[in-house]
Amino acid sequence: MEREHIIRQYDLELNDIRQKLLEMGGKVEVMIANAMKSLVERDSALADETIRFDHEINHLEVEIDEKCLHVLATRQPAARDLRFITLALKIVTDLERIGDQCAAIARRAKELNQEPPLKPYIDLPRMAEWTAIMVKESLDAFVRGDDALALKVCSDDQFVDDLNEQIQRELLTYMIGDPTSISRAIRINYVSKCLERIADHATNVAEMVIFMIKGKDIRHTTP
Amino acid sequence: MEREHIIRQYDLELNDIRQKLLEMGGKVEVMIANAMKSLVERDSALADETIRFDHEINHLEVEIDEKCLHVLATRQPAARDLRFITLALKIVTDLERIGDQCAAIARRAKELNQEPPLKPYIDLPRMAEWTAIMVKESLDAFVRGDDALALKVCSDDQFVDDLNEQIQRELLTYMIGDPTSISRAIRINYVSKCLERIADHATNVAEMVIFMIKGKDIRHTTP
Repeated sequence: MEREHIIRQYDLELNDIRQKLLEMGGKVEVMIANAMKSLVERDSALADETIRFDHEINHLEVEIDEKCLHVLATRQPAARDLRFITLALKIVTDLERIGDQCAAIARRAKELNQEPPLKPYIDLPRMAEWTAIMVKESLDAFVRGDDALALKVCSDDQFVDDLNEQIQRELLTYMIGDPTSISRAIRINYVSKCLERIADHATNVAEMVIFMIKGKDIRHTTP
Repeated sequence: MEREHIIRQYDLELNDIRQKLLEMGGKVEVMIANAMKSLVERDSALADETIRFDHEINHLEVEIDEKCLHVLATRQPAARDLRFITLALKIVTDLERIGDQCAAIARRAKELNQEPPLKPYIDLPRMAEWTAIMVKESLDAFVRGDDALALKVCSDDQFVDDLNEQIQRELLTYMIGDPTSISRAIRINYVSKCLERIADHATNVAEMVIFMIKGKDIRHTTP
């Protein structure tokens, strides 16, 4: 009975880590959406809010880290649980850095909002939606242990990379055609790079999930 | 006697992780230097070698991860050792991603080597040397538990950020003055961004080291 209670308590702790990670992931998704909204709708107040919100993400990182350390120290997890917790420790770092990228986008948005718009944003919001879905699905893949979903995230990364290239090419034609557009084009390019970096983080998470499930490292395939 | 043997064995395992991390760090430093050399000396063969070398870094990541998991599973480390191992798990991910950035620089170098040089590289090699030192010092800070050195790394990051800004501004004047320089300038800008990203990884490592030592999170100071 006592043993059963301990096991149940342990399951609750693992579940708590799982839930906190999903909560952090949900907040990061909102941050991506708000950072983009502050850019597209030229809403500098929302940009400020997004920059401030980054601290909440940072606190969640510390909280989840501590929960993982607590379980490692008190439960001596083995095999699957051990891989789950050590992966959670790594994933939380990726989520925190996605938050940093969102704050960076919001900072660029504030700068861009002070100049006349260069062009309507069409591809960037699509790219942002896509990356937010990748972040969500990489975490879903982790908590469900769903390697098929993780593989989907990895292959979706190509689409984001392609969009980034397309945006860069388009901005290049603006820069060549009108040198006064260059500084704005560089800032928009920076936003595109941030989104690409967020997608990279989601891909990294997905790759680690596949490694956890399959014990096979698709991160590092043939040389 | 038996117990003493177990303790000694455990120390050897921790030391092995420490050594492997330093080895990985040393290889990553060489990668940074070679990626830059392939650019500055227009040596595409060295660029290819650098891209291939990334796989060695990736294998080291998997190897160190497994060593950490093994210690967690068999030694039930507590307190300081536990923080050391969980931090090693995180640091190894940063090192692996620094390797990715070096490979990305080498790929840009190959592209740039096919076009006439835009200008002599002066600030980029300085920036690369600086980032390589940051990587080395962040790892030294980790293995020695030296929070003063970790703090130095964090403050050095500003210098790299400043150099990156300066390079971007300079490239901007090239782009405005001569539109035919734009595609090369964008590639050089990309290299600068990669170096900045490497410095960010070193800074992340240093911040985590300070957190490990002080239990205080300088990653996330006041909002």
